[in-house]
Amino acid sequence: MITGSTSGIGLGIAREFATAGYAVGFHGLEPDGVEISTAAGLEFGVPTFFSNRNLLSMESIEKLVRDTEMNLGPIDVLVNNAGIQHVANIEDFPVENWNNIISVDLTAAFHTTRLVLGGMKKRNWGRIINIASVHGLLASEFKSAYVSAKHGLVGLTKVTALEGASYGITANAICPGYVDTPLVRKQIADQARLHHMTQEEVIEKVMLIKQPIKKFVKPESIGALCIFLASDHAELVTGTAIAMDGGWNAQ
Amino acid sequence: MITGSTSGIGLGIAREFATAGYAVGFHGLEPDGVEISTAAGLEFGVPTFFSNRNLLSMESIEKLVRDTEMNLGPIDVLVNNAGIQHVANIEDFPVENWNNIISVDLTAAFHTTRLVLGGMKKRNWGRIINIASVHGLLASEFKSAYVSAKHGLVGLTKVTALEGASYGITANAICPGYVDTPLVRKQIADQARLHHMTQEEVIEKVMLIKQPIKKFVKPESIGALCIFLASDHAELVTGTAIAMDGGWNAQ
Amino acid sequence: MITGSTSGIGLGIAREFATAGYAVGFHGLEPDGVEISTAAGLEFGVPTFFSNRNLLSMESIEKLVRDTEMNLGPIDVLVNNAGIQHVANIEDFPVENWNNIISVDLTAAFHTTRLVLGGMKKRNWGRIINIASVHGLLASEFKSAYVSAKHGLVGLTKVTALEGASYGITANAICPGYVDTPLVRKQIADQARLHHMTQEEVIEKVMLIKQPIKKFVKPESIGALCIFLASDHAELVTGTAIAMDGGWNAQ
Amino acid sequence: MITGSTSGIGLGIAREFATAGYAVGFHGLEPDGVEISTAAGLEFGVPTFFSNRNLLSMESIEKLVRDTEMNLGPIDVLVNNAGIQHVANIEDFPVENWNNIISVDLTAAFHTTRLVLGGMKKRNWGRIINIASVHGLLASEFKSAYVSAKHGLVGLTKVTALEGASYGITANAICPGYVDTPLVRKQIADQARLHHMTQEEVIEKVMLIKQPIKKFVKPESIGALCIFLASDHAELVTGTAIAMDGGWNAQ
Repeated sequence: MITGSTSGIGLGIAREFATAGYAVGFHGLEPDGVEISTAAGLEFGVPTFFSNRNLLSMESIEKLVRDTEMNLGPIDVLVNNAGIQHVANIEDFPVENWNNIISVDLTAAFHTTRLVLGGMKKRNWGRIINIASVHGLLASEFKSAYVSAKHGLVGLTKVTALEGASYGITANAICPGYVDTPLVRKQIADQARLHHMTQEEVIEKVMLIKQPIKKFVKPESIGALCIFLASDHAELVTGTAIAMDGGWNAQ
Repeated sequence: MITGSTSGIGLGIAREFATAGYAVGFHGLEPDGVEISTAAGLEFGVPTFFSNRNLLSMESIEKLVRDTEMNLGPIDVLVNNAGIQHVANIEDFPVENWNNIISVDLTAAFHTTRLVLGGMKKRNWGRIINIASVHGLLASEFKSAYVSAKHGLVGLTKVTALEGASYGITANAICPGYVDTPLVRKQIADQARLHHMTQEEVIEKVMLIKQPIKKFVKPESIGALCIFLASDHAELVTGTAIAMDGGWNAQ
Repeated sequence: MITGSTSGIGLGIAREFATAGYAVGFHGLEPDGVEISTAAGLEFGVPTFFSNRNLLSMESIEKLVRDTEMNLGPIDVLVNNAGIQHVANIEDFPVENWNNIISVDLTAAFHTTRLVLGGMKKRNWGRIINIASVHGLLASEFKSAYVSAKHGLVGLTKVTALEGASYGITANAICPGYVDTPLVRKQIADQARLHHMTQEEVIEKVMLIKQPIKKFVKPESIGALCIFLASDHAELVTGTAIAMDGGWNAQ
Repeated sequence: MITGSTSGIGLGIAREFATAGYAVGFHGLEPDGVEISTAAGLEFGVPTFFSNRNLLSMESIEKLVRDTEMNLGPIDVLVNNAGIQHVANIEDFPVENWNNIISVDLTAAFHTTRLVLGGMKKRNWGRIINIASVHGLLASEFKSAYVSAKHGLVGLTKVTALEGASYGITANAICPGYVDTPLVRKQIADQARLHHMTQEEVIEKVMLIKQPIKKFVKPESIGALCIFLASDHAELVTGTAIAMDGGWNAQ
C-alpha cells in the first residue's frame, strides 16, 4: 500500500512495485484514481486496489488500511508517501496549514504504521518506507510545518525500526531533494510569488541552489530505491534516512 | 519566558536566568506556580510573572504570550521547555496520547515562536531555545510520539534559525539525556511496569544503558547552557541541536 | 576496481559486479588472488584482473590503478573497500598501527580517487563507493584509529561528491555494521582477549549489543547496494553515508 | 595546553582561559611566541609556558606535552586547535599537502590525546576540546584533505569521549564556520585566485554563501564555549560536535 500514489512520486513508486510483481494498493485524491489503479493492474498484470480516503481523519485511515487488506490481503510493504506543503514566514504561517501538514505528513504515517505493525509482527516480516524529504534532515526558510513534520517522520522511522527489529521488519526513510511533481511545481509557483521572480529563476537560484547536482529526482528512481529496501538484501538496512538529493546534505 | 518552568528542567533554567538578572516569565501546571514565581523573584531580585495556560490550546498559548509580555515587556528569550511523554508499543499507542504529545511537545513551540518572532525581528535581537531531548536526534523503543515530536522540534529549530538569521535572532535545541525530574521518574516507573523490573534495574539496565556516563543531567546545567546560548558569545550558534547526553549520541 | 576484494566484503562486492556483467579489477593480499580473480572471470564470463599492490605506498597505488586500467580499460566504478583495524586504549595505541590504519583506510582512498577522478570527469560519468563502516558515523571504545579513518573517509566522500557533481560522478559511503568476514573474526578474537570473554559472549554482549537486529551483514548485500549506487537510478544519490547496520545508528 | 595558540582562534581561546584564571600552555610557530605567552601571563596574572614544537613529528609532540607539564603541572584541559589547510581539486591535490594536513589536523591530536589521557584517568578528571570546523560535519569543494582530517577529528573526539566516560573526562569538538583569522585570510586569497574573483566577492559569494548569518565568528566566542565545556556544568556534554557556524549546518 502506497499513500498518495495516483500521481507524482507515489505513482512512480507504485509503478516500480507493479513492475516487480507486487499487488499494489493505490491511494490518492485524484478523481480518476480508479482508472489509474485499474490501468496499472492491466499494464503489469498485478492485482490493484484504489481508495481515496482522507488522511486527515483517523477513521478514514483505518478504513483505507482495512479496505486495502480486504481486497489485496495483508500489507507486507507500506509506503507512506502522501504529503502536503505550505510556504510562509513562521510569524504569518496559517495555523490551519500547520495543523493539516502535521496531520497528513506525520500523524497519518503514525496511523498507517500503527495499523499494519501488529500484522507484520505476527508474520515476522515487513517493510515500512517513509518518503520524507531532504527537509527531514535539514531546513529551508518558510517551510516550518513541512520541515517539522518531515523531521518527525524521520524520528518515527527510527522508532518503528527499533520496535520491528526482532520481527524481521525494517523501517527506513527516503529523503529526496526536489522531484519533478505537481507538489514541487506548486512550490515553484509559491516561491516565485514570494520572491518576485520568474519560475525559471526560482528553479535555478532558489530551489536547486543548495543542490550540487542541478537535476530533479525522477519518481521512478525513488521507486527503484524502494524496491531495494523491500528486498532481502536490505534486511539490515533499518532506521536510516537515505538522501537522494544530489549532494545537498553533503555541504 | 520559559514554558513548563515551575518544576524540573524548566525550573532549573528559570533559576539560572533569574540568577543572571533576567526578568522571568514562569509557566506551568503546578498549583503553587504563583508562589514559585514570586519566591524566585524575591530570591534573585528580578521581576517575575506566572501563567498556567494550557499548551494544548492555541487561544490559551496566545494569552500566555500576551499576558507575559504585558507584565514583563517584550520577550527577548523564549525557552520552549514544556513536554509530555507516554510509553507504549506503536500498535497499541493510544491515539489521544499521540495527539497530545504532538500538540504540547511540538505544536505549542510553533505557536510561541510564531507569536514572538515578529517582535524579535522588529527589535533585531532574539534567542529561542527549544529543549528537545536526545530523542530529538535518535530513538528509543516505545516512544514513537515523543521521538517524532522532538525530532520535529529540532526541525522547527532549524527553520527558525534560518528565518531569524538576518535579524540577530538565533534558535537552538538542547538535547539532554535523562535529567532527574518528575517526568523521568514517571518514565522509570512506566518502564519498570513494562519490563517487569525494579526501578533500580530500569535505571541501570534500561534508562542509562545507552549513556556512557552513568549520571543524570542536572537541571541547572541545562540552565547554564541556556545562559551561554543567550549571550553575545553565541551570536553565531544557531540552528544546532546540542547534546548533553553523557556520550549517548557518540556511539 | 575494488580494493581488498579477494576476501570478505570486497569479494562479495566483486561477485555482485561480475554477476551484473562488469569487468572487475580485483585487488588484495591473498596469495591466491590470481586464482580468485580468474575463477570469477570464468564463472561470470567477464574480464578480470588481479593486483596485489600494497596500499601503504603511494607509488604502489599508482601502479595498481595504472595496471588495472591498462588491462581492463578506464575505471568507471571505483570501490574503496580495503581496510585494516586495531583495538587498544588510546593511551596505549601503538603509533605504527595508527599510522597504518590512517594510510590504508583513509589515505589510500584519497590516492585511488585522485587517480581516477580526472578520467571520470573527462568521460562525464563515474561512481565512487567508499566502504566505510558504522564507525564512519559513530564510535566504539578502543577503535580510535579506525573510527577516525572511517569518519575521514565519509568526509572525503562528501568532497568527492561535490567536486564530481557537475560531471555525472557520484560518491557515496556505505556504513555496514558487523559483517561476517575475516576482519570481524579477528576483532571478535581481539575483544575476547581484551574483555576476558568467550567469542560467543563477545558476539552477543559486545559486538552486536548496539545493533538492534542481531544478525551479521552479508557481503553480497553490500554488493547489491553497490550495484544500486552504480545504476542510473542512483544518479542523484551522492555525498551520502548509507547505514546497513541493523538499526545501530537509530538509537 | 592549547596548540596553535599564538595567533587566531587559539590565541582567542588562550586569552579566555587566562581570564578565567587557568595556567596556559601556549604553543605555535610565531617567532614571538615567548613574548605573546609572557605578555598574557602578566596581563592576566597566570602562569604561562610557550613551546614551538613541530606538530608534524611525534617526538616533537611528546616533548611539547612533557615540557608543558614540567613547567605548568599536569594538563587538565587540552585544546587541540592547530590546523593547516590547502585548497585544490582532488585530482591535482599535492600529496605532500594531504599528508601534512592529515598529520597536523588529525594525527597530532591523536598524539596529544594519547599523551595526556592516562594522567587524566588517574586524576579522574579531564577536558579535551578539539577545534574541528564546520568541515568536520560537512564538506566544501577543493578541501579534500581538510574535510577528511576534520571529520576524522570528530570521530577521534567520540572515541575519546567513550573511553573517558568512566573517568570524569569529557571530549568535545567545536565546529566553527569562518573565523576572522590568518588562516581564513589565506583561504580568501586562495579562493580568489582559484575563482578569479576579488577577495570581497569571495567573502560574500563563496565563503559565507552557505552561512545564513553573514558574520565571521570571533575567536573569543570560541574561547567562551571552551570555558563552558571546561566547567562542571558541562560534565555530561561529551562526544558532541557543537557547530558555531551561523546556521550553515541547518540548511
